[in-house]
Amino acid sequence: MEAPITFVDDRLLRKVPSWRTYLAAKLGFRNHWYPIKLSREIGESQIVKATLCGENILLKRIDGKVYALRDRCIHRGVPFSEKLECYTKGTITCWYHGFTYKWETGELCDILASPDSKAIGRQSVKSYPVQEAKGAVFVFMGDDDVKPHPLCEDVPPMFLDEDLALEGDSYMVQSNWRVGCENGFDGLHVYIHRTSPLVNDTQRSLPVGHTANSGQIVLHEVDGQPKGVYDEFAHHVSLWEGQVEGDVVVRGVRNTRTDGVPTRTTAASLWLPGVLRVDDFPDAGRHQFEWYVPVSEDEHYYLIMIGKRVTNPQEALDHEQEFWNRWKPVSLDGFNNQDIEARLALQKFYSSDKAWLQEMLIEGDHPIIKWRELCHRHNRGVQRPDHL
Amino acid sequence: MEAPITFVDDRLLRKVPSWRTYLAAKLGFRNHWYPIKLSREIGESQIVKATLCGENILLKRIDGKVYALRDRCIHRGVPFSEKLECYTKGTITCWYHGFTYKWETGELCDILASPDSKAIGRQSVKSYPVQEAKGAVFVFMGDDDVKPHPLCEDVPPMFLDEDLALEGDSYMVQSNWRVGCENGFDGLHVYIHRTSPLVNDTQRSLPVGHTANSGQIVLHEVDGQPKGVYDEFAHHVSLWEGQVEGDVVVRGVRNTRTDGVPTRTTAASLWLPGVLRVDDFPDAGRHQFEWYVPVSEDEHYYLIMIGKRVTNPQEALDHEQEFWNRWKPVSLDGFNNQDIEARLALQKFYSSDKAWLQEMLIEGDHPIIKWRELCHRHNRGVQRPDHL
Amino acid sequence: MEAPITFVDDRLLRKVPSWRTYLAAKLGFRNHWYPIKLSREIGESQIVKATLCGENILLKRIDGKVYALRDRCIHRGVPFSEKLECYTKGTITCWYHGFTYKWETGELCDILASPDSKAIGRQSVKSYPVQEAKGAVFVFMGDDDVKPHPLCEDVPPMFLDEDLALEGDSYMVQSNWRVGCENGFDGLHVYIHRTSPLVNDTQRSLPVGHTANSGQIVLHEVDGQPKGVYDEFAHHVSLWEGQVEGDVVVRGVRNTRTDGVPTRTTAASLWLPGVLRVDDFPDAGRHQFEWYVPVSEDEHYYLIMIGKRVTNPQEALDHEQEFWNRWKPVSLDGFNNQDIEARLALQKFYSSDKAWLQEMLIEGDHPIIKWRELCHRHNRGVQRPDHL
Ligand code: FES
Ligand code: FES
Ligand code: FES
Repeated sequence: MEAPITFVDDRLLRKVPSWRTYLAAKLGFRNHWYPIKLSREIGESQIVKATLCGENILLKRIDGKVYALRDRCIHRGVPFSEKLECYTKGTITCWYHGFTYKWETGELCDILASPDSKAIGRQSVKSYPVQEAKGAVFVFMGDDDVKPHPLCEDVPPMFLDEDLALEGDSYMVQSNWRVGCENGFDGLHVYIHRTSPLVNDTQRSLPVGHTANSGQIVLHEVDGQPKGVYDEFAHHVSLWEGQVEGDVVVRGVRNTRTDGVPTRTTAASLWLPGVLRVDDFPDAGRHQFEWYVPVSEDEHYYLIMIGKRVTNPQEALDHEQEFWNRWKPVSLDGFNNQDIEARLALQKFYSSDKAWLQEMLIEGDHPIIKWRELCHRHNRGVQRPDHL
Repeated sequence: MEAPITFVDDRLLRKVPSWRTYLAAKLGFRNHWYPIKLSREIGESQIVKATLCGENILLKRIDGKVYALRDRCIHRGVPFSEKLECYTKGTITCWYHGFTYKWETGELCDILASPDSKAIGRQSVKSYPVQEAKGAVFVFMGDDDVKPHPLCEDVPPMFLDEDLALEGDSYMVQSNWRVGCENGFDGLHVYIHRTSPLVNDTQRSLPVGHTANSGQIVLHEVDGQPKGVYDEFAHHVSLWEGQVEGDVVVRGVRNTRTDGVPTRTTAASLWLPGVLRVDDFPDAGRHQFEWYVPVSEDEHYYLIMIGKRVTNPQEALDHEQEFWNRWKPVSLDGFNNQDIEARLALQKFYSSDKAWLQEMLIEGDHPIIKWRELCHRHNRGVQRPDHL
Repeated sequence: MEAPITFVDDRLLRKVPSWRTYLAAKLGFRNHWYPIKLSREIGESQIVKATLCGENILLKRIDGKVYALRDRCIHRGVPFSEKLECYTKGTITCWYHGFTYKWETGELCDILASPDSKAIGRQSVKSYPVQEAKGAVFVFMGDDDVKPHPLCEDVPPMFLDEDLALEGDSYMVQSNWRVGCENGFDGLHVYIHRTSPLVNDTQRSLPVGHTANSGQIVLHEVDGQPKGVYDEFAHHVSLWEGQVEGDVVVRGVRNTRTDGVPTRTTAASLWLPGVLRVDDFPDAGRHQFEWYVPVSEDEHYYLIMIGKRVTNPQEALDHEQEFWNRWKPVSLDGFNNQDIEARLALQKFYSSDKAWLQEMLIEGDHPIIKWRELCHRHNRGVQRPDHL
């Protein structure tokens, strides 16, 4: 095969033995669940395109359930989506020679231009397991011989809790997915958020940074459970002033409340295959989930969901309205957009594979290295050129 | 040399021993005649640019005869066409230092800025043999030490027949030339043409497909004659209905005539170096010729000519008018445009060299494999990076 | 490392042993001084971006002196210029996590988000030596362990003379820097300038070319002095007519003066690291200096300066006015623009590394080969992928 074994040069990979497969995973990990769309984006009978780990996928909702097929005819490789042809509810027909596949299994069930071909019933197009949860459509980017793991192993703890109401929105961001993960989890980048309208809106505290070595983290590596790195902000020694040559040039914002309600984020954790949970953010009692889903080498699908524990439908409705009226403009478009800008700038550097060896991380970046190593230990496979 | 031996990775080539050089011939074959322009596009004294197998070429008609030179000065490589300078009818002068070449031979006959250089009379720019026939200008893309073969070995039988009147038009198509060949010759792709206005216009029959194994073909491999694969449609068992899960979802069109005149195409044949002949198409008594001429890795020159046997000038004139009034709108722009769309979709897949090993051909694609193997046996050389 | 040792394939380099490093120096030479901006383009306190040999650089003038830092944070590689943050006159702060560097040395003096990091005071961003002379800002593109050589070794003789008044302007040209050098020094390319308005304006002589072998050159290779090749035009046997097949088709312009003042250029010389001096050009008593400064593989910074010996401030002022009123429109924009066009055409050929072995130089190109060999012997290092 012309294609190299991985997308990244082996001479570079050998230099980072403790996180080798993370460096190799330019297009993400295999055999994991990734959210690919919000449920509301796929109506009944609708066919929707998406790209995951470099593979073009078509999604269709049939009788409420979403199915996913690779958007590439097995015959001569053309995309079905070039000219959609669907003659029955449960099948899709390639417009070129009429190869027809079942949405449910991908099985080649008919060939309109050659109905007695021996390929019928024996071949199939790649079909992806799909699961919906909490308003998002998850796809298992798996090897054919791998039985999908339970979804609960690939999402942060709490996400699937029954009493957690979730609302979200998504963005396409032109950076690699790993750049997204590391920007989100980075404890020092609070520095860029001091100008966010969210600070005033929530009367929150926002330090300028924190002291070196304060980013101690806890690893979650229990079998059958989500794998993640957990950074509790209680350990942080926050800094409220930024100095240059002894003079204060930048000040953080420090709010206190008498009722004991936290005025700032209490923890951040990052989970395989690339999803962040931020506790008490964007406000006390809310939990933000951020997925950085691999699309291509230089693009990721950035899905943000905000969760709140509710006890009745009215509280869920209130949360939904708060999301659209407050968090969408003030937090997603007024805080996370700053992260998007940072990722675009990072991408200029990290798009070169050797940059990963040229960076100069400091004490506060310790959690990021732990994240890379955790990924290396627990990923279930690396997306490779021969998968495309 | 930095340049690899071929454009395609040797590890891929080794996997298809029976059509290795066809896979390698991304930019076409050498030592063959290719049409490069229609005669009417090169008026007397006019200089016209074209690209063939990746080589930029300048054409000029002098006293009725067309000459072709590589559009790249031998001195320091600039294109003559950047700033055309011609001081005599028979020469072209490079605008940079005045290297002057004869159109007839390519010989360096003068250097305006250095008239006593020893290079004069000893060097020359690549000059290509040119031959006109049937309204097209053919160029021999040859090695310097190869005497051009007779044109009649590189065109389909019948094309040069004296009583065949021909009219044509051309398109630039953004796909590899091999994708063009295979789309044109493909017996199953009749499926996409069921919506063409040509069907009604000619009251022709158009099946949905045909049964497996019905694409039996005859190989033409006689020394000194054109090399081609010939697919007679009389062998085909046509299908008039397309079914999905037992229900008819698509119907072909079946016309019959009492006078024995065929209401459908009777045969298709594909000839080296990449030209299709379709008999009784677009209507009984007409023969369509389609060239897929390599321009670059992802572009070919698509020349369509329609021929009809005539016995006098009036019949030739009638044929010309029919071409422009009927076949150009109804067939070229109403039938072959569907093929162009298909090729653009195919190119998304086949632009990756390894795709040629990922396709999954079926029984009816048998003629395409025979075509690839015939090319492998009879081509006279592969265009390589060091030719550019 | 994934990055190859040089930008150019070693199999090509081995074929030109006498000018190997010149072929390798696609992005220029290291440990040389290059002009990067005109002094007038960097006002006090202004921060200006530039790219040299592929490295992005920020320049700032502080209390009159210009400093230069690499525009890439050492922490996670983002460009400072993405969002400039400067809290004190002498420092620049990265907008992402507040790494703060001294303009003078590049030293990391503070980290706003992590003020107790051990990296502070120990690390630094690449800082480039800067020197201003004759209205241009020179940057030493050097290795960290190389002490900058005196500027006078990297500029043509006479350039730094106290009585030489200089004015200049600059262009970004989309060709490799070596293509710029060779186009400028090329003795035969006078051919393209016959249509320049400068000829009439200065009543100068302009031959069509010269006889073969007349381009004898003198090499300057004394230790501690500029290294260059010197082509005195007195050796040239000029040609005043260009012929094709025995007929005169182009005429040069021949002016003579009775006062002995030369009516044409008297010499051209090309100096490391890529700067041309043309004597008695654009008119008697003027000296034109042209730098071809590597920016990227396919771009160079083209700085033209015209010098004249002056004895008092009024003469210097007259020279300045002459530059803007006469030489800028008539010579820079009416003569050197023809060279820019030629370089764009050359780049189409020479952008392929193997083209350097496909060219067919003639007798009059002898000085160009001497230039390449001189570069090979005297450059102080080649810019390599691992410098980027
Ligand atoms: S390419 Fe899809 S049916 Fe042939
Ligand atoms: S490049 Fe054509 S004459 Fe020099
Ligand atoms: S990237 Fe510049 S401070 Fe972190």
